[in-house]
Amino acid sequence: MENNKNYFDMAEIHEECGVFGVYNVDNASEIAYYALHSLQHRGQEACGIVCVEDGESTLVKGHGLVTEVFNEKTLKSLKGNMAIGHVRYSNLGNGIENVQPFLFRHHSGDFSICHNGNIVNSKQLRNYLEKRGSIFQSDSDAEILGHLIKKDLKSQRIEVMKTAFNMLEGAYAFAIQTKDKLYGVRDKYGIRPLSIGKLNGGYVISSETCAFEVIGAKFVRDVEPGEIVVISKDGIESHNFSEFKHHYLCAMEYIYFARPDSDIENCNVHTFRKESGKLLAINDDVDIDIVIGVPDSSISCAIGYAEAKGVPYEIGLIKNKYVGRTFIQPSQELREKGVRMKLSAVHSIVDGKNIVMVDDSIVRGTTSKRIVNMLKEAGAKSVHVRIGSPEFKNPCFYGVDTSTYEELISARMDVAGVCKEIGADSLKYLSADDLYKAGNRSELCTACFTAKYPTDIYGALEDANKDRKF
Amino acid sequence: MENNKNYFDMAEIHEECGVFGVYNVDNASEIAYYALHSLQHRGQEACGIVCVEDGESTLVKGHGLVTEVFNEKTLKSLKGNMAIGHVRYSNLGNGIENVQPFLFRHHSGDFSICHNGNIVNSKQLRNYLEKRGSIFQSDSDAEILGHLIKKDLKSQRIEVMKTAFNMLEGAYAFAIQTKDKLYGVRDKYGIRPLSIGKLNGGYVISSETCAFEVIGAKFVRDVEPGEIVVISKDGIESHNFSEFKHHYLCAMEYIYFARPDSDIENCNVHTFRKESGKLLAINDDVDIDIVIGVPDSSISCAIGYAEAKGVPYEIGLIKNKYVGRTFIQPSQELREKGVRMKLSAVHSIVDGKNIVMVDDSIVRGTTSKRIVNMLKEAGAKSVHVRIGSPEFKNPCFYGVDTSTYEELISARMDVAGVCKEIGADSLKYLSADDLYKAGNRSELCTACFTAKYPTDIYGALEDANKDRKF
Amino acid sequence: MENNKNYFDMAEIHEECGVFGVYNVDNASEIAYYALHSLQHRGQEACGIVCVEDGESTLVKGHGLVTEVFNEKTLKSLKGNMAIGHVRYSNLGNGIENVQPFLFRHHSGDFSICHNGNIVNSKQLRNYLEKRGSIFQSDSDAEILGHLIKKDLKSQRIEVMKTAFNMLEGAYAFAIQTKDKLYGVRDKYGIRPLSIGKLNGGYVISSETCAFEVIGAKFVRDVEPGEIVVISKDGIESHNFSEFKHHYLCAMEYIYFARPDSDIENCNVHTFRKESGKLLAINDDVDIDIVIGVPDSSISCAIGYAEAKGVPYEIGLIKNKYVGRTFIQPSQELREKGVRMKLSAVHSIVDGKNIVMVDDSIVRGTTSKRIVNMLKEAGAKSVHVRIGSPEFKNPCFYGVDTSTYEELISARMDVAGVCKEIGADSLKYLSADDLYKAGNRSELCTACFTAKYPTDIYGALEDANKDRKF
Amino acid sequence: MENNKNYFDMAEIHEECGVFGVYNVDNASEIAYYALHSLQHRGQEACGIVCVEDGESTLVKGHGLVTEVFNEKTLKSLKGNMAIGHVRYSNLGNGIENVQPFLFRHHSGDFSICHNGNIVNSKQLRNYLEKRGSIFQSDSDAEILGHLIKKDLKSQRIEVMKTAFNMLEGAYAFAIQTKDKLYGVRDKYGIRPLSIGKLNGGYVISSETCAFEVIGAKFVRDVEPGEIVVISKDGIESHNFSEFKHHYLCAMEYIYFARPDSDIENCNVHTFRKESGKLLAINDDVDIDIVIGVPDSSISCAIGYAEAKGVPYEIGLIKNKYVGRTFIQPSQELREKGVRMKLSAVHSIVDGKNIVMVDDSIVRGTTSKRIVNMLKEAGAKSVHVRIGSPEFKNPCFYGVDTSTYEELISARMDVAGVCKEIGADSLKYLSADDLYKAGNRSELCTACFTAKYPTDIYGALEDANKDRKF
Repeated sequence: MENNKNYFDMAEIHEECGVFGVYNVDNASEIAYYALHSLQHRGQEACGIVCVEDGESTLVKGHGLVTEVFNEKTLKSLKGNMAIGHVRYSNLGNGIENVQPFLFRHHSGDFSICHNGNIVNSKQLRNYLEKRGSIFQSDSDAEILGHLIKKDLKSQRIEVMKTAFNMLEGAYAFAIQTKDKLYGVRDKYGIRPLSIGKLNGGYVISSETCAFEVIGAKFVRDVEPGEIVVISKDGIESHNFSEFKHHYLCAMEYIYFARPDSDIENCNVHTFRKESGKLLAINDDVDIDIVIGVPDSSISCAIGYAEAKGVPYEIGLIKNKYVGRTFIQPSQELREKGVRMKLSAVHSIVDGKNIVMVDDSIVRGTTSKRIVNMLKEAGAKSVHVRIGSPEFKNPCFYGVDTSTYEELISARMDVAGVCKEIGADSLKYLSADDLYKAGNRSELCTACFTAKYPTDIYGALEDANKDRKF
Repeated sequence: MENNKNYFDMAEIHEECGVFGVYNVDNASEIAYYALHSLQHRGQEACGIVCVEDGESTLVKGHGLVTEVFNEKTLKSLKGNMAIGHVRYSNLGNGIENVQPFLFRHHSGDFSICHNGNIVNSKQLRNYLEKRGSIFQSDSDAEILGHLIKKDLKSQRIEVMKTAFNMLEGAYAFAIQTKDKLYGVRDKYGIRPLSIGKLNGGYVISSETCAFEVIGAKFVRDVEPGEIVVISKDGIESHNFSEFKHHYLCAMEYIYFARPDSDIENCNVHTFRKESGKLLAINDDVDIDIVIGVPDSSISCAIGYAEAKGVPYEIGLIKNKYVGRTFIQPSQELREKGVRMKLSAVHSIVDGKNIVMVDDSIVRGTTSKRIVNMLKEAGAKSVHVRIGSPEFKNPCFYGVDTSTYEELISARMDVAGVCKEIGADSLKYLSADDLYKAGNRSELCTACFTAKYPTDIYGALEDANKDRKF
Repeated sequence: MENNKNYFDMAEIHEECGVFGVYNVDNASEIAYYALHSLQHRGQEACGIVCVEDGESTLVKGHGLVTEVFNEKTLKSLKGNMAIGHVRYSNLGNGIENVQPFLFRHHSGDFSICHNGNIVNSKQLRNYLEKRGSIFQSDSDAEILGHLIKKDLKSQRIEVMKTAFNMLEGAYAFAIQTKDKLYGVRDKYGIRPLSIGKLNGGYVISSETCAFEVIGAKFVRDVEPGEIVVISKDGIESHNFSEFKHHYLCAMEYIYFARPDSDIENCNVHTFRKESGKLLAINDDVDIDIVIGVPDSSISCAIGYAEAKGVPYEIGLIKNKYVGRTFIQPSQELREKGVRMKLSAVHSIVDGKNIVMVDDSIVRGTTSKRIVNMLKEAGAKSVHVRIGSPEFKNPCFYGVDTSTYEELISARMDVAGVCKEIGADSLKYLSADDLYKAGNRSELCTACFTAKYPTDIYGALEDANKDRKF
Repeated sequence: MENNKNYFDMAEIHEECGVFGVYNVDNASEIAYYALHSLQHRGQEACGIVCVEDGESTLVKGHGLVTEVFNEKTLKSLKGNMAIGHVRYSNLGNGIENVQPFLFRHHSGDFSICHNGNIVNSKQLRNYLEKRGSIFQSDSDAEILGHLIKKDLKSQRIEVMKTAFNMLEGAYAFAIQTKDKLYGVRDKYGIRPLSIGKLNGGYVISSETCAFEVIGAKFVRDVEPGEIVVISKDGIESHNFSEFKHHYLCAMEYIYFARPDSDIENCNVHTFRKESGKLLAINDDVDIDIVIGVPDSSISCAIGYAEAKGVPYEIGLIKNKYVGRTFIQPSQELREKGVRMKLSAVHSIVDGKNIVMVDDSIVRGTTSKRIVNMLKEAGAKSVHVRIGSPEFKNPCFYGVDTSTYEELISARMDVAGVCKEIGADSLKYLSADDLYKAGNRSELCTACFTAKYPTDIYGALEDANKDRKF
């Protein structure tokens, strides 16, 4: 499964984002720039940074990669030693008004917000707020939080925030910045990750720890589920907004979203994936010559499988690293003739071989079908598909853009059916149990595999069943 | 006085904008694109369009000229037969969040707003609204109106609007668009212009009538001061929100801002300027060889002066029409050596001549000084400066970005002083009386010349006096 | 007649270029940048600069305006105190290989060339050269000169050059730069202009003198027809390559191409045009209310006509100054409905009036027809068209892109026919005699009006007659 | 060793290019576009395509990636069923005149050329040609060939070509296109690769076979050393221009330049690298916990090492795949604080481990030093560096931009010295013998390791010794 949207669209699921915040570090906007760049895999459609200097907030945001939206001039215009930033995946055509961070101007002080995740009761909250006079300029959950925070101007800010976060149901990690404080918040289910680091006497927060290595920060700890972390000149202060606390971290973060060099809740992502590959190999007695992985997210899993199995790992599929957003799509005619811009099979590696092809997941099945076909055309004798996660059977309402059963191949058919559909010689999935084992965890959000949604989902399944034809 | 901001900065005043709206015309966004292009002289920094199709609003906005912000792809994404659009002058560095139109999402239906002018009590209104739970994402007056309109969800919309416009003090022309209606509104003092046209069975509204000619629309009438015009499937409906009604149209619209082919309140701008030139010439017994004008806004006035005087009008100053925003400024060294990218004197025209140089106004005086100097270096024997408006002595709070006395040369010195400062051989201004005569009008806003502010200005003069050193 | 190519294409003739050179002036590339910018009206499709520092030549060139092709980084990469530069009109789609200047690398020293005009025997010369082993990388006449110069490595350079220029038949102005010299050359007929200026102890050469004012240079003299000017550390040296010498300057330079502030062979362009307007008015007893001009090139002529006639000059047509290359053309539907992006009539000026509309020339007639129609739609009672040049009856082979009789309306029909075709109430042209009078000249190239081609044209008329249907 | 030039510059050697040609395939320019995109790793600075339709050649070229230089409009302008194309590495600042392909216009028919490699006697050939009247517009070897081919217009073309290629000494692969033929040529030493494929009844040639998979072509065979392949309507025709024939293929093609999925002379690049890793591991009795590779080019080698050694391969270094050319470099201050935009160590993988870090080569040593340091900072207990090639001791004159001994760390010091310099705990290189073994080859160009230059080098070593301080 992949991240770019091209004709040969490997990307089957999306809608992740990355948030980052930095407090009391010189050149905060530059730090944010490099950090967001390291979070770029979480969203390539748009990004933005808000900096604070002497209580004054400045915002630069736009569509495109971090390296496209920011240049030396705009980066220099973002002054101060505090900043928050955001990278965003979004559906094409989405307006600039939805690009984060949101900056709110207020007589009590400007504040800015950015968000990763999905609020399940956003519709209800918007109605509630509009009836009380709020107007919205976007479809963003971050704007809802802005309104919730300013509804009550009399109570202490931290109390207002606690109330607000208890009203938000769903998956979220927020970075919030006022004129002199940086806040990091995670939902009480712990679905979306957020970590704290230390840098030159100041602090940073980030959706993933890979940003810390890039900017030279040291990991301190994760923000806890249901915790509001307040970073100010007095250091770090911790508040709980809920007694309910679980670590139902989204399994797909490990399986697909996160960068291999990130650690999430004390587990390295590459290690998780390699471990899952090893678990996949146990008792898998298929007779093969080589193991290959679908780049980039399935490489670790494939290497683990190969090691456990004692079969050579080979580069049987190769991805063009220069695929960009300005890419011209092949005409229908060329596409049918086999022009493959993004991923290609390595003929001399796969020709005549019995192969295990490891992928991280199967969502719609179209990509797997194409890859298996490509390998066979390149001469593979047999292609045995091994998936580093269980069957993806249920829509996700926490930030992955699968909203109907109809689009999920594993909702429509069983393993044998999928195997036939994608043209594989055999097909096996990681068990849900092995998922926990790979991460050495007792809790995970596996709703997409098991339908066990940790939060109230406000009747979302009704919509998800709408176009169901099976 | 000029419009672009370059090293040799002719632009002494700014902060105008242009609004446009179209109702029930096919390809509304395309129509808005061409109309905004014809209003481009009112603002070159940013622009935007909101289109409505089947009740769904889509927004595209950005920094740059109309031809830079919109391309075929974005224009095609703006579907529907209703649209409003905006061109904006703004200080460099201003964020995308201030670019208009504003699009507000609301359960009662989306609506969008754009604005030309300046609200004098915006600070007071923001405080009022924030205390009632509003949060702001920009510094824009248009956003204030959005909040005011949605504070009261129970009353009839037109009543809510009337209340809102009575709360706004200052100069404004608004285009407002709901899912099925287009509104045009002018302040009760009539400071900013707004006209109605008819096009193919639908309607358009525009800050200037020059847009009508471009898109093939027929002028219907001006929106009246204190009037809310509602355009819907039932045609045009008119509502007054105030019994107070005056036509204190900003004199600078005629003198400098508007395009010569626009008619404002039944007076053509070129004709106004030419007439003012003629009035300037009456009893002006200076002995000269030729008359020249500072391009582009002073040409009409210079031609009028030349005709009345019976002296040849010549092209003694020429403006490079390819000056764009990406222009590289000459180094200090080259500047001193006389590199003049934007405006140059025509040596063979002015050499050895006694000249009347007509300009529309003198604000800071630096530009006039440069031009007089340039003409003398090119050999002019004498340069007599004639200004198509009275002495600019007072700050404007209605949309022209002169906010302090200190920056106004005529606030600091008398005519003789200014004449000496700019190096002219003589200097004369149009009288305030002649201003009314040129436009055949009984009312005008001449606050910048006469200090007669038609509105309450909420103590703004205190700030304006702040850095006063004289 | 106009210069941009848009849907409502006013531009009826093209193919001019501008050349510039600077010797021994600090920041030579910057000087060239500003100079080319002032020559931008001679070509908007492409441009380039070659700088020399310590004998090393560097070239930057590209498609687009001067402000688009050069930025601070590329300008800084062009080091040295010598430079030549070029602005070019070219047919869309022309490759980068045709963009000038041409830079030739040679063991005897690099040299670079740029050119304005058209060589009539280019085909013959290319054949001659190719048979001797030359290969060409472009369609450009400048490349031919490069080859001619290096065919003979034994003779003295100036002698080689004399031979070369005697082989080139046609219209040309060349700027040539070696590692330590700058050359300026004009054809022996004097068809294309080239002037010399002085700047800070160094020298400049330019297609038009308007560049001198911009960069602060003083006009010295024109390069003479058939002269090679050599500028080096020894100052200016002059060589004649031909005894034949005439001043058949292209009349269209005065009429249409040049900027009003340029002086060509001691005659200011604006003055020429105004004078031609006055001559047009003599004995023209049409009864009119106002005179208007087609912007920008016909304004001077219209003002002259109005002055001579004693009738008011008015701004009855207005051109949008923000029309750029990225402009989106109106759909056919909108075009028919009258969307006019580039030029519009001023209703309140022309309505009910009898008008003289002055234009510089009529080539194909389509533009004139559109403008007359536009004025009538805006209410003009009558539109009398007056043209500041004689009937354009013959193709030009010297740099104006009219190559067939078929496309020239005046080759196909007489004045009465053209008048009817463009819908005018009357139509008059300047006589050829008045053309000489307007410029106070005894020689001009008027081949397009009179068919008197000053050079051999190598049978070009055969091609020109090809599609002739009349 | 890496391919991009950024602050943390991993790229230690460069100057490779990629050539491609297609004959008798519909949409040839599109095919070339996708093929060049797959060759993008061979050169990211500039690219171009020449298409031929009905004997007419059209050229589009520019600086930037394939996806930046070409858009739908320019691609559509390239019509026809024949094309050649080029991707180029070049030093920053190099002019557009050096960007390939070169298109030559000639009365005998246009032709175009592109080239990979380096001609050793280019200086001598340019002098020879200039003395015979040639002039050059670039520094490119491809232009030399153009002149050589057209010097003799009387002999048969193939004979002229044979003569020309016998004059060129050095490393080259050429794609040449006339109005109806496509030529592929390799130097007689076989230093640079070039392969032939079949596609839909037509043919393609490419520097690497990875392009074939992408466009759906089938590999036919390699162009042989000293062979001219002529592809025309009569199919493939073969001519030898030399009796001397060797397969001294550049070893660095296998080691570093080529894409892992390419096969060069029957040996897959990934397989070569993996094999070299295995050979490195034999008898390497270092005691380690994990093996890591420097991405991307050393991954295959590292996996081979790990497999042979039976030690886990881990992702200990990660490369940001979004590093582009518009990247803003960290300020000196941030750099010192450890901001690492391009490559970062994975703390949780390397912390506390004894590591073998595999890289493909060490040229200057600075990159290796940085990476070892980075790993140690991330907690590595020991870092043992293993290099997939012998010591790089000699400059290359065949297309790799190492031209002096001074810059080569292995020319200045022995293995122990390098080991100390880069801070490694131990350092081992692949032996030259193992290089042949890895590719199962009897011939290779290993001049950079062994100083055995297969061609005359025209005294190039004198220059290479110039700044030698040791």
